[in-house]
Amino acid sequence: MADSLKNFRSICKKIIAVGRNYSEHASELGNTVPTKPIIFMKPTTAFVTEPNDIRIPADWDELHHEVEFGVIIDKQCQNVSKEEAEASIGGYCLALDMTERNLQNELKDQGLPWLLSKGFDTSCPCGDFIPKEKISLSSSVNLWLNVNGNRKQSGHTRDMIFSVPDLIAYISKYITLEHGDLILTGTPAGVGPVRRGDLIEAGMEGEHDLKYLMKFNVA
Amino acid sequence: MADSLKNFRSICKKIIAVGRNYSEHASELGNTVPTKPIIFMKPTTAFVTEPNDIRIPADWDELHHEVEFGVIIDKQCQNVSKEEAEASIGGYCLALDMTERNLQNELKDQGLPWLLSKGFDTSCPCGDFIPKEKISLSSSVNLWLNVNGNRKQSGHTRDMIFSVPDLIAYISKYITLEHGDLILTGTPAGVGPVRRGDLIEAGMEGEHDLKYLMKFNVA
Ligand SMILES: [Mg+2]
Ligand SMILES: [Mg+2]
Ligand SMILES: [Mg+2]
Repeated sequence: MADSLKNFRSICKKIIAVGRNYSEHASELGNTVPTKPIIFMKPTTAFVTEPNDIRIPADWDELHHEVEFGVIIDKQCQNVSKEEAEASIGGYCLALDMTERNLQNELKDQGLPWLLSKGFDTSCPCGDFIPKEKISLSSSVNLWLNVNGNRKQSGHTRDMIFSVPDLIAYISKYITLEHGDLILTGTPAGVGPVRRGDLIEAGMEGEHDLKYLMKFNVA
Repeated sequence: MADSLKNFRSICKKIIAVGRNYSEHASELGNTVPTKPIIFMKPTTAFVTEPNDIRIPADWDELHHEVEFGVIIDKQCQNVSKEEAEASIGGYCLALDMTERNLQNELKDQGLPWLLSKGFDTSCPCGDFIPKEKISLSSSVNLWLNVNGNRKQSGHTRDMIFSVPDLIAYISKYITLEHGDLILTGTPAGVGPVRRGDLIEAGMEGEHDLKYLMKFNVA
């Protein structure tokens, strides 16, 4: 079954992303640490893969990088417990939750939905499918991101406020998760702007020689 | 091509909904009239069709009905002009944008995304595909909704702040619209709560004997 997830991006019907899931990142944007997961969506038209570019919409000037650990659903699930949650996972990926921060701040100030600031075309640069067997949820994965060779973000999935099983249990209480769906689990501290012409490199490393790297140019 | 849209709900990859697109509805919730479309997403797992029920999640007690005119995309489009927009349409449908108002108000007050209040399972009761030829965009469609036989909402699509071509042009500037995607164009005034056991009837009428009716029980 997990084999059909190799092309999860074309099967995927929804990308559910989690905000403020690392305390240091919540603080750096002046936000409090949430008591429940903060969830929003990105459309699947947001996917972009190497060697294509991240395209900044005209007139936007504060596009931020957010490197995130992605969880890909295999078995459809609805209202599963934390204990059952892991069985619904098919695999993982590395992804970026590109965010137009000025626009997001305006939307937040006005109590408006975040979609435009988070869901534009190429706002979800995404890596390849990594089968579930390659990463143990009980281990910690190091996520990092460089802009033009300078380290900007580095964090460990063990520092998530809500763990992967917490997130699947919470989301599936309200929203059925389906084969191919992607959950972006939040970004560690260090988010910041990118400009046209910048090179973003992002990677993750962990147990059993896990080493994944991806590169995107900003256009 | 439009023929394959009969089952648009299973092809659909995204539901993009528009907030405050009728001035009287914006006013009834104490909001100002927007100068740009307000957009958010509902996942496709939100679809529910007759004879299934709208299910209110446990502990929620202020679920509101919003009757809306739906536009179904046929031809993929990106950054189209208002003039080109109509050519991308495959058809229309009647739909409800069910909203947990207390939760939405909390999320708005905190500057948080609306997804949970708008995207839970069964939050998008949806009717059948109506081919584009059946409804002229230059005419006006009357939308209405009854709860337990009492008229709660009634409005005309001519009163939309942003027209269907306006919305397609605006959204497609940022987010590529694909075959089967659904745009919910906002609700007229009269939104209000439903309780478990209520019967919702919604309909639309227009030129050329257009008459569509759908019924949902709230469970
Ligand atoms: Mg993020
Ligand atoms: Mg949203
Ligand atoms: Mg609505």
